Amino acid sequence: MDELPPVAKIREVGPRDGFQNEPETIATADKVRLVDMLSASGLKRIEVTSFVRPDVIPQLSDAAEVLAGVKRREGVSFSVLIPNRRGLERALEMRERFDEASVFLSASETHNRHNVNRPIAESLAGLEPTLAMAGEAGLRREGVIATSFGCPYEGRVEPGRVFEIAEALAAAGCEEIGFGDTTGMANPRQVHEFFAAARERLAGVELTAHFHNTRGQGLANVLAALEEGITSFESSFGELGGCPVPPGSTGNVSTEDVVSMLEEMGVATGVELPALLEASRAVQEVLGRPLGAHVLRAGPVDWRR
Amino acid sequence: MDELPPVAKIREVGPRDGFQNEPETIATADKVRLVDMLSASGLKRIEVTSFVRPDVIPQLSDAAEVLAGVKRREGVSFSVLIPNRRGLERALEMRERFDEASVFLSASETHNRHNVNRPIAESLAGLEPTLAMAGEAGLRREGVIATSFGCPYEGRVEPGRVFEIAEALAAAGCEEIGFGDTTGMANPRQVHEFFAAARERLAGVELTAHFHNTRGQGLANVLAALEEGITSFESSFGELGGCPVPPGSTGNVSTEDVVSMLEEMGVATGVELPALLEASRAVQEVLGRPLGAHVLRAGPVDWRR
Repeated sequence: MDELPPVAKIREVGPRDGFQNEPETIATADKVRLVDMLSASGLKRIEVTSFVRPDVIPQLSDAAEVLAGVKRREGVSFSVLIPNRRGLERALEMRERFDEASVFLSASETHNRHNVNRPIAESLAGLEPTLAMAGEAGLRREGVIATSFGCPYEGRVEPGRVFEIAEALAAAGCEEIGFGDTTGMANPRQVHEFFAAARERLAGVELTAHFHNTRGQGLANVLAALEEGITSFESSFGELGGCPVPPGSTGNVSTEDVVSMLEEMGVATGVELPALLEASRAVQEVLGRPLGAHVLRAGPVDWRR
Repeated sequence: MDELPPVAKIREVGPRDGFQNEPETIATADKVRLVDMLSASGLKRIEVTSFVRPDVIPQLSDAAEVLAGVKRREGVSFSVLIPNRRGLERALEMRERFDEASVFLSASETHNRHNVNRPIAESLAGLEPTLAMAGEAGLRREGVIATSFGCPYEGRVEPGRVFEIAEALAAAGCEEIGFGDTTGMANPRQVHEFFAAARERLAGVELTAHFHNTRGQGLANVLAALEEGITSFESSFGELGGCPVPPGSTGNVSTEDVVSMLEEMGVATGVELPALLEASRAVQEVLGRPLGAHVLRAGPVDWRR
């Protein structure tokens, strides 16, 4: 364990992934206030919203208003999720309000069809000009690959296939590839092997791990990735979002728990846990129900120091 | 990760640690049925009950009846928790119904006083003749050290102090020492360092890790211990028990989640997850509320194989 990286980065995806999955649309003013609290907590990366079709995901139909409202803070990078060229065009009307664009597809054909109704090759072909346009606009680009560690429809997903897609995204301009464990199928041994291979094959690209806590292994997988030198993670405050399947199960690993584990191990995140927990309590109040993040319920470790 | 042990043992502590912490006493017949389901699932070790004072913990006042009722199964070892000599005497009336005795104390003076109202030295002095008597009765002996990784009252607990207590317990006859992370303060780096040192200092003694999921790190800590060659774990089905502090937080790491992670990594536990989940659903029905084990809520990973 002596070789753990000294520093890790966390992209908070709750304002997009979490708010999108709430049955009731959250008021724009609340979204703005919560994002402001998150960026005040020391988080360096926040996925603020998504320019998906408002008729498909009405929960995020105020994407432009949210971007217009949130406070820009030195050193905090805002990203938006972009489904396609049309979404990017809408986002670019707010160009000065964000820094990064994330695009997505699945590593499994069946999941990709279920999600965006087309084969992977067609998704890639559509993303190429979108990524080019994002690059011309000076945006940093992340390509997110869902079901990188397993697919609820197909089961095993070959890492070699995931890396091919990652290479295609990198060739199309992505500076960063996010690997999503979309339904929480990954285990730590698999994560070790996956990222050992990924680092060899995708040198020069930032590799980001996006784990779910569906089977309780979220933090164990973060640890395994960290032990392989991965220092970029995505998580969600309050344990929001992440398409919990089946209902009642958990989705995204929570930011509070990731920050707590990393900081306890001496891996600096830059996040002030008390400030993050303020944001968590605020979103809990907005949603009117207790949220699942462990550290939100139990409080940080108290070493009496 | 190539050096993960191929096999691990799990002691199920739910029937003692879980049932003891339920506000409503569970009917003896239900306890017997649930223990029988657990031993049918392939678990090799089960902590069946405790001979604590019935007026102090009425939830376990039927310890003798439970032991008398549960089915003995080839290869399944039953243990009981023993607070003191009087408890052991009561337990020995049922000697043929169990195989192992666990005694306990804390590594922190303050926690030990809160828990058993005496200093550690006095606890140790009292346990010595009790352990001798248990040995004469042919029982295998486990010494459990609470707050081994941190104390809610004192904060840091020096590993050297924990090892001294472990050595005293081993000298008094314990074949096994269980290290409890009583309020979920451990992190994986600490666990790595702790067990690397413990293995050197306590050669010849079986070292058992007992983690809580208070801050979501339960499985990450299991992974860290496993990477240090620890192959004996304690956990609780349904995520029962473990004195959740504060209320609403989680206690013991769940057996379902531990089994799922280990089996997914190719570490054999001997447990049939579907049979274990039957026991979990049965206890859920007895208690009349949904339980927190992740794999109970989400189901096992489905690789479509």
